[in-house]
Amino acid sequence: MKGLMMDYPLTVTSLMRHVAAQHGASEVYSLTVENPAHRTTYAEIFRRCARLANALRRLGMKEGDRVATMAWNDYRHMELYYGISCMGGVLHTINPRLFPEQLQYIVNHAEDRFLFSDPLLLPLLEKLHADFPTVEAHVLLSSKQAMPESSVPNLISYEELIEGESDSFDWPALDENTASSMCYTSGTTGNPKGVLYSHRSTILHTYASGLSDAININSTDSVLPVVPMFHANSWGVVYCAPMVGARLVLPGPKAGDPEALVAMMNSERVTTALGVPTVWLGLLNYLEATGQHLETVRDLVVGGAACPRSMMVDFEERHGIHVIHAWGMTEMSPLGSVNAPTASTGGMDAEAKLHQQLSQGRAPYGVEMRLVDDDGGELPRDGKAVGRLQVRGSWVAHGYYRAEESALEDGWFDTGDVASIDPEGFMRITDRTKDLIKSGGEWISSIELEDVAMAHPAVAEAAVIAMPHAKWSERPLLIVCLKEDAAVDADTLLAWFEGKVAKWWIPDAVEFTDELPHTATGKVSKLKLREQFAAAG
Amino acid sequence: MKGLMMDYPLTVTSLMRHVAAQHGASEVYSLTVENPAHRTTYAEIFRRCARLANALRRLGMKEGDRVATMAWNDYRHMELYYGISCMGGVLHTINPRLFPEQLQYIVNHAEDRFLFSDPLLLPLLEKLHADFPTVEAHVLLSSKQAMPESSVPNLISYEELIEGESDSFDWPALDENTASSMCYTSGTTGNPKGVLYSHRSTILHTYASGLSDAININSTDSVLPVVPMFHANSWGVVYCAPMVGARLVLPGPKAGDPEALVAMMNSERVTTALGVPTVWLGLLNYLEATGQHLETVRDLVVGGAACPRSMMVDFEERHGIHVIHAWGMTEMSPLGSVNAPTASTGGMDAEAKLHQQLSQGRAPYGVEMRLVDDDGGELPRDGKAVGRLQVRGSWVAHGYYRAEESALEDGWFDTGDVASIDPEGFMRITDRTKDLIKSGGEWISSIELEDVAMAHPAVAEAAVIAMPHAKWSERPLLIVCLKEDAAVDADTLLAWFEGKVAKWWIPDAVEFTDELPHTATGKVSKLKLREQFAAAG
Repeated sequence: MKGLMMDYPLTVTSLMRHVAAQHGASEVYSLTVENPAHRTTYAEIFRRCARLANALRRLGMKEGDRVATMAWNDYRHMELYYGISCMGGVLHTINPRLFPEQLQYIVNHAEDRFLFSDPLLLPLLEKLHADFPTVEAHVLLSSKQAMPESSVPNLISYEELIEGESDSFDWPALDENTASSMCYTSGTTGNPKGVLYSHRSTILHTYASGLSDAININSTDSVLPVVPMFHANSWGVVYCAPMVGARLVLPGPKAGDPEALVAMMNSERVTTALGVPTVWLGLLNYLEATGQHLETVRDLVVGGAACPRSMMVDFEERHGIHVIHAWGMTEMSPLGSVNAPTASTGGMDAEAKLHQQLSQGRAPYGVEMRLVDDDGGELPRDGKAVGRLQVRGSWVAHGYYRAEESALEDGWFDTGDVASIDPEGFMRITDRTKDLIKSGGEWISSIELEDVAMAHPAVAEAAVIAMPHAKWSERPLLIVCLKEDAAVDADTLLAWFEGKVAKWWIPDAVEFTDELPHTATGKVSKLKLREQFAAAG
Repeated sequence: MKGLMMDYPLTVTSLMRHVAAQHGASEVYSLTVENPAHRTTYAEIFRRCARLANALRRLGMKEGDRVATMAWNDYRHMELYYGISCMGGVLHTINPRLFPEQLQYIVNHAEDRFLFSDPLLLPLLEKLHADFPTVEAHVLLSSKQAMPESSVPNLISYEELIEGESDSFDWPALDENTASSMCYTSGTTGNPKGVLYSHRSTILHTYASGLSDAININSTDSVLPVVPMFHANSWGVVYCAPMVGARLVLPGPKAGDPEALVAMMNSERVTTALGVPTVWLGLLNYLEATGQHLETVRDLVVGGAACPRSMMVDFEERHGIHVIHAWGMTEMSPLGSVNAPTASTGGMDAEAKLHQQLSQGRAPYGVEMRLVDDDGGELPRDGKAVGRLQVRGSWVAHGYYRAEESALEDGWFDTGDVASIDPEGFMRITDRTKDLIKSGGEWISSIELEDVAMAHPAVAEAAVIAMPHAKWSERPLLIVCLKEDAAVDADTLLAWFEGKVAKWWIPDAVEFTDELPHTATGKVSKLKLREQFAAAG
């Protein structure tokens, strides 16, 4: 027997309608190449979404067409988010920091019909546009006045494109399973793979993100996504902040600039900011070097890579900012788990509390997790057993765009991570499957060693990779980048590990480097490190 | 083009799995007729749900069968919630305070196959069971030991029913639109009507309830639903509290006993409690009479009827408890709107803030509202225009059980309320359509007059009804019930309205009564008042 409740599809369109009706006056601040402090409202953004949709229809866009963006976090990018998805198109956000050959592969694989690029990325576009044969029109996210000269044929400004179009658009009634956006994961091996989100998965992810044990924002908050809008939809916050009526503060091209970020956070009264550890490390160093502090920030959401222990301690103890440790994947929209205290956290001593807070946290309702051994047997959730982490749920991908086979194993998606889960559901990643070090038949966690290294006062960033070893099969190599003006020698650094990890876990050697290589999403590239230090063993 | 996300149905079963996996150890406290402090956990409740499902299957229960409960808020009732819905049955919660003929109508209309009753309701059951021919088995929510003698044939105890059954049950994979529970509305005219919730509507309602601008609970909270589990699923909190891992404190038959409630709230460290104004008025009087206070309560969710101004002021100013004013209907699962502060509330003076907080609040994402005039034309959201309030959304009914016609008007459900909506989405109910008073061609709001009367220090409860009038067509009559040992005469009370409402709104007369009649859901019954005072005009 079916219930007798309304058939009300979960679409981004209904979210847009909700926000326009009651949070229309909430502000969106953007820093763009043209304007250091552009201010608009959700209502105005949605009016411009209608203009955009009218313009795209004029250009012949049909439902299901892919429309690509190479852009920073600002109001125009947000207009593309809502305008394209709500007209039934697929918003394809591209990470401009990928290698040119990856960009070429992605645009051609997605068969993007239109490409919207930030003016700062024009040099890149000029190099690549000839390799994008499916793209019929190039639009630069710029006013007409500020349009630069360019070799890209028929390049048009965004403002000219939407100028004169109507403020209203008859948004189609979409099936909730319609694709709304896509994002390619840049795997360390093989070609990038396209994750295709649906309206339904986006909406359910938005509900879960807004829970008080998740991102924990409401209509009184001012939210800064430093995480890019091309990085799994800036962790969904471009949907969640409007849903609850929070202000958005969008840093444009300044997401990597601690000085600009700190100024923006203080002047725009930011209460919650989201980003990867690399960004927060830079910000923390800047705060310490300048003696400035963050006046209004309550929560810092740290994801994309494990939050180093020292970083959490510094933010909490020296700056009074609560760190919310989160974990996810592009294939998970991306929210997989969030670390929030439980009733039992209250009874813990400081060390136990910190230990728990450094885990990746718990899955919100809508994501299920399990651990399996190499034979696919399920492992206990006892906080000790370590196995392959698999997930399923409302906002988890079951396959990739234009890939025939299902990406699932027995209905579950394998994250590629190795983890434990405790009886309360706290999940702790010990490594990426491919980064584990197997020494003498036992596993060593590269993440734990990195965490110990990064707690050393002289170390700015650290990575551990496996080196082949004749007797032990593999042994850990520690690679560190020191803080400016700091000094430590290899023996001292290795002695630092004593008592902190099992003796046989301590790396055999240290390599010092000026900079660690990062992937396009800001993670340390262990692939490049392995190439670079292939001879070090 | 469809997205490539997992097909993960929104079912109560997946919620149960989530709660078991990570909030299994969270406690559920119950007061029952057998036990003043029964303690269990979600994990144990779900194990007993499996036993219950095995027992019901043994009795021949099939998917879609209706199973009725006449029970207070306790752990056994919660087991019925999850056990019945997750096995594909329809949990039919019945309000035992309805008239016997309504109970008879409801059970027969729903064709309930099984009926689970609280021991305290046995006298009622003994009177009525012969009128319930569709009910094949009667179960008393009791241990075997405590089973009373009874004239109900083959009456079995709940504990005997589930004893010896397996702790595990192969829960079926349900379509998310499957009916999960039903609740009859006791309309003031005609027969009660059955609202049939689905798994999907229940889950979406649960997500929205958990948002920080809604019920605002998380895993560190201890939540007391005074609102009964037969009153629109105790406003969904029996799903929402487990979802976020909060503790539940269930008051059993003591929901109307201020002394027991205050003791429970303090001993069980309750942070959030939910109930109708009548309950909170009683509690407030008890606190003032005894000098006790609530030690841990942060939020009081008030719904089911408008929160009187004086009650909000007393709780906030004298007890330091934040009142969350909410509004809903059985047909809305029931959450329609919640009052939470916005960014602009901060700049308001105390009076403006209180005025805003006394409105019914804003719709969470998932509910849309509109105002229409008598011709169905849409009215502006300017905070001034007043019209019929209509809603649509993910957890709104489109029809009633075994009723042919749609309950909708142009896709919208008419709430029967008259309201305004301001540009920020704050909705303010001015009256029930049928309670409005039309005087000299203009509307008078009975709710506003009641609010003024209840702010008078001598008044315990007040109601205003329309009396026929030769010249003005209708005029307001004020009916009041005074506080114990308080005294005020009619003229003094009417003078109290001067300067607080328009002169022509001031009631023509006052009737004093020892008690106002209430409906089975705790609201003042204006129908009965109109009968009672028919001659007063």
